[in-house]
Amino acid sequence: MIPVLSIVGSSDCGKTTLLENLIRELSGRGYKVGTIKHDVHGFEIDKEGKDTYRHKQAGAHSVLISSPWKYALISDVDSEKSLDEIAGFMPLELDIILTEGFKSAVKPKIEIFRKNHSDELLCADDPTLVVVATNDKNNSALEGINNILDLDNTKEIADFIEKHYIQKSYGRVSLTVNGEKIKLNQFARDIVESTLKGVISQLKGCESPKDIDIKIKDL
Amino acid sequence: MIPVLSIVGSSDCGKTTLLENLIRELSGRGYKVGTIKHDVHGFEIDKEGKDTYRHKQAGAHSVLISSPWKYALISDVDSEKSLDEIAGFMPLELDIILTEGFKSAVKPKIEIFRKNHSDELLCADDPTLVVVATNDKNNSALEGINNILDLDNTKEIADFIEKHYIQKSYGRVSLTVNGEKIKLNQFARDIVESTLKGVISQLKGCESPKDIDIKIKDL
Repeated sequence: MIPVLSIVGSSDCGKTTLLENLIRELSGRGYKVGTIKHDVHGFEIDKEGKDTYRHKQAGAHSVLISSPWKYALISDVDSEKSLDEIAGFMPLELDIILTEGFKSAVKPKIEIFRKNHSDELLCADDPTLVVVATNDKNNSALEGINNILDLDNTKEIADFIEKHYIQKSYGRVSLTVNGEKIKLNQFARDIVESTLKGVISQLKGCESPKDIDIKIKDL
Repeated sequence: MIPVLSIVGSSDCGKTTLLENLIRELSGRGYKVGTIKHDVHGFEIDKEGKDTYRHKQAGAHSVLISSPWKYALISDVDSEKSLDEIAGFMPLELDIILTEGFKSAVKPKIEIFRKNHSDELLCADDPTLVVVATNDKNNSALEGINNILDLDNTKEIADFIEKHYIQKSYGRVSLTVNGEKIKLNQFARDIVESTLKGVISQLKGCESPKDIDIKIKDL
């Protein structure tokens, strides 16, 4: 699965701005970043008069427009989907998915705590809170919080995400063929990992393989 | 796979209008219709200033906005995708996918031939042309064409699509449990069909199962 990390915080605390900064920083480091935004009111994204808009208005369940560089899909859902289900709609080649909101989903969270903005943390008692990003480090509301990062230091927050979420996922499978490191997307990594573990767990003494190191050399 | 059918024709012949009519008619019959539009210029679908727009501008590879009723996904692609790959981006619960354009893809096609609009068929020699929809039946350009339908008779064209593409796909697997007919989506149908055929083809005398009828009754 692609790692999912949520940026949460009270309204107008700057979630979109932090997301923009993190997207720029992580994309600049070569990662493919996906974002998911929660909307409770019903959004309008297409432009009146466009063919896709006309298809949807006529009653299409799903409309897709495809160009050589990108595509856009607008689709109905029968019921509200969980964050895991929504993440499953995203392309497999992403390295990380950042969400804006989704406070109630069971995913690791970075909460923004902005000076003079609120008196307490939204997720103070939530075990999925992994970091507070703040410009108000000495506020008593943050007593007992271990991981506090500087809200205005995007690089530091990106370092944390890279170390704990992206690289953790990436580090699981590395494949070198003929001396060249092969870049695997998440799907290929998962396939290689589960296939190898499945085969190796059949071997005596290897019932629960965790770290596997195989070298094959054709002489 | 969800059946894919392309609506083709010279520019301004009325592809979007026929698509709208077919979407209304087929949706009205209870089918979930998806549409795919080909764009060669580079489309703009999001609205400046919206959060998803800001995420994409900041460099996100993919952005998704999700509400209880629908979602929208805008995603980069590394290279132009085939129609089959694009159809793979669509939700599995669709009953039929209609495309606007995609003249060169190897998919069944309905060509619109409008009076006083062009002198010859685009797909005259294309074996994937299955129907010409026209308001000019006696035009000599249509000599030798077997399946000609009335461009202005949406019901007739929808009947053709339903009979040859949707029902063909639906008829393959039907499942009744405890006397109740279970609605299966395409994915479930494919799984049930391929699993059953796989198991049954192992039985002596059943090497190429085509029609399978199984009844199990727990007394």
